[in-house]
This record gives sequence, C-alpha cells and structure tokens, in this order.
Amino acid sequence: MKKIILDLAVTLDGFIEGPNGEIDWCIMDDDMDFEGFLSSIDTIFYGRVSYDMWGNYQPEENASPEEQNLWKAVHAKNKYVFSSRKREDKNAVFVDSDIASAVAEIKKQDGKDIWLYGGASLIKTFIDLNLIDVYRISVHPIALGKGKPLFEDLKDRLNLQLIKTNIFKSGVVQLIYEPVK
Amino acid sequence: MKKIILDLAVTLDGFIEGPNGEIDWCIMDDDMDFEGFLSSIDTIFYGRVSYDMWGNYQPEENASPEEQNLWKAVHAKNKYVFSSRKREDKNAVFVDSDIASAVAEIKKQDGKDIWLYGGASLIKTFIDLNLIDVYRISVHPIALGKGKPLFEDLKDRLNLQLIKTNIFKSGVVQLIYEPVK
Repeated sequence: MKKIILDLAVTLDGFIEGPNGEIDWCIMDDDMDFEGFLSSIDTIFYGRVSYDMWGNYQPEENASPEEQNLWKAVHAKNKYVFSSRKREDKNAVFVDSDIASAVAEIKKQDGKDIWLYGGASLIKTFIDLNLIDVYRISVHPIALGKGKPLFEDLKDRLNLQLIKTNIFKSGVVQLIYEPVK
Repeated sequence: MKKIILDLAVTLDGFIEGPNGEIDWCIMDDDMDFEGFLSSIDTIFYGRVSYDMWGNYQPEENASPEEQNLWKAVHAKNKYVFSSRKREDKNAVFVDSDIASAVAEIKKQDGKDIWLYGGASLIKTFIDLNLIDVYRISVHPIALGKGKPLFEDLKDRLNLQLIKTNIFKSGVVQLIYEPVK
C-alpha cells in the first residue's frame, strides 16, 4: 500500500508562509537529501492553488544543474490535483469530489509513496480525513510571529508519534512522525 | 553575566496552551532532567498572571516526593515579577517600569542563570527587547490547531541558531537555540 507523506518546511512558530506568502526563510541544504526523498515517491498530491503555482513550474534557463534536475524529477511524477472546480490538464489528474474514495483507490496502486505537497487547506482536509501516514516536518530556525499556519482549525487534536529526527548543518531539524492510531 | 533562558513546552504547531488554557498535553518525563535545569538557575522571571497562578503554588499534600521536591526547588529561587501594576509580596521583587534597565542590573549579579518563565506577553516583551540569551523549546508530539501561540505578533522576525537538540523517549524534542546577533 502506498503511504501518503506530508513533507514540508515550517518555521519554529508553525508557519508555512509569512503573512504575504514569504518563503525566503526556507533553507535548502545539500545535506537534506531532498533527491533521496523524491526518489522514494512516484506521485504528488496538490491543491489547486499550489498546482497552478508549482505544478508546471520551469526553472530559469540559467538555474544550476541541480535545480534543473530537481524540477525534472518532480515533473516526472504522477500528479493529482484536488479541487472542487472542474478542470483538465494533460499533466495531471483532477479529483473534484469524494476525496477519501479517490485516495483509497490511488493508495492501492503499485509503486512508490505519495508526496502530499499542499497547500494548507488540502493538508487540513487530509488531516481531518485521517489520510496522512507520515509527517516530515522540517523546523526552520526562525520565528515569524505571523503568517499562514500549517495546522489551522483542525477538527480534532492531532496526536503524533515521533519516529525519527534528522538534524541538518543549517540548523533545520526534521521531525518525522506517524499519527497515533 | 547571568543568561536569560526561555524554557518551555510547545505543541508542534507552536502553542503554549490550548484555546481554553489546556496544558494537559504537556509531558513531564523522567529523562528530561528538569531538576538539572532547575539547578542551573537561581532566578525566575514571571509575568503577573503567571506569578499569580504559579509563583506561590503548593502541590497537594499527597503529591509524589519528586513533585514536592520540584516545587521546593522552584520556590527557593529569587523571583521577579514584571507588571505595570504596583504590588508587594514578600516572596518576589516587583518591577513595574523600565524592564530593560532592571534586567541589565539583575544580569550583572553573581550566581547562576535566569529562567524566563512567561507568560506569552512577557516573553514577547523580552523578545522585542532582545533580552533572551537561550531558547529551550520542547516540541511536543501533538498539534492542537488552535490555542495561545508562543510567538505572537513579534516586532521583527526572530532569527535563531541551533545549538543542541535533546530527544526524549516520550517523543518530545527539545530544540535549544541562541538568537543570531
């Protein structure tokens, strides 16, 4: 069974963006092995806004080979977009109703795991439906004081079990949890 | 020079209390060596509300010897209460104006370090005045979705440098930072 993995960067105060969408605090260090994570998944789940921003993003022509390769790897994944608006796009499958059943079908497919990319409202939906198998939260060494929270107005408390921690040279600490069943 | 140490428990989403003051999620495990921390400080800073709740708290008579000893150790510390209301109490010194100068004088005293106990508004004042030397943040394996944030409406972003991490068997991860000067 494929696992659904939430993997994202948060500030120490639990924001995924500043009040004006700022993500300039987000560190991408070479000891983080993001490529390793990408090679463990074959599917990406997006919300509509995130897909419109990043689903077909192409790096600048003068971007580093590492960045070019990273985006090539991202765009080679199977992509699903969860949105109540009906849409079509040759690069993604759009799911516009009954998320839980659609996700249950996708999880049964063979292959690697699934990266739940975001944004915040899709994440909230997945938490409330209890669909996330692994939380990989990279806590960055900064507090913004305001911004867009990762966990906002959850239906219930979310109890987690710590599985692993990774400490990076930049001071980012990755906390890996599974939900307490 | 005495250091000012913020030491507290937060949820993964950065709350120090639930929306109704809940702290039932807060874990106190014997591998956390809270006694060791207490023995490294000789002074506690409170805001008014926190002092009224905890400054003279006495555990139940049938509390465990560990809990009795912990509170005895807490109450043996020098206590300062920061409040704009004038007050007197034989167990604490009240500071009702010019926090920065008062704190500078206290830091010059000989002895051990200072525990900045809280609450949230005193912590905010200390962050905004750049008075905190060490942040010891114990991230608990739970998200509440709502509550009282540790870092609320900061004047500026707070950039931190990771110094150390401690991982406890309960799944609490203590992140120790110093501010980036």
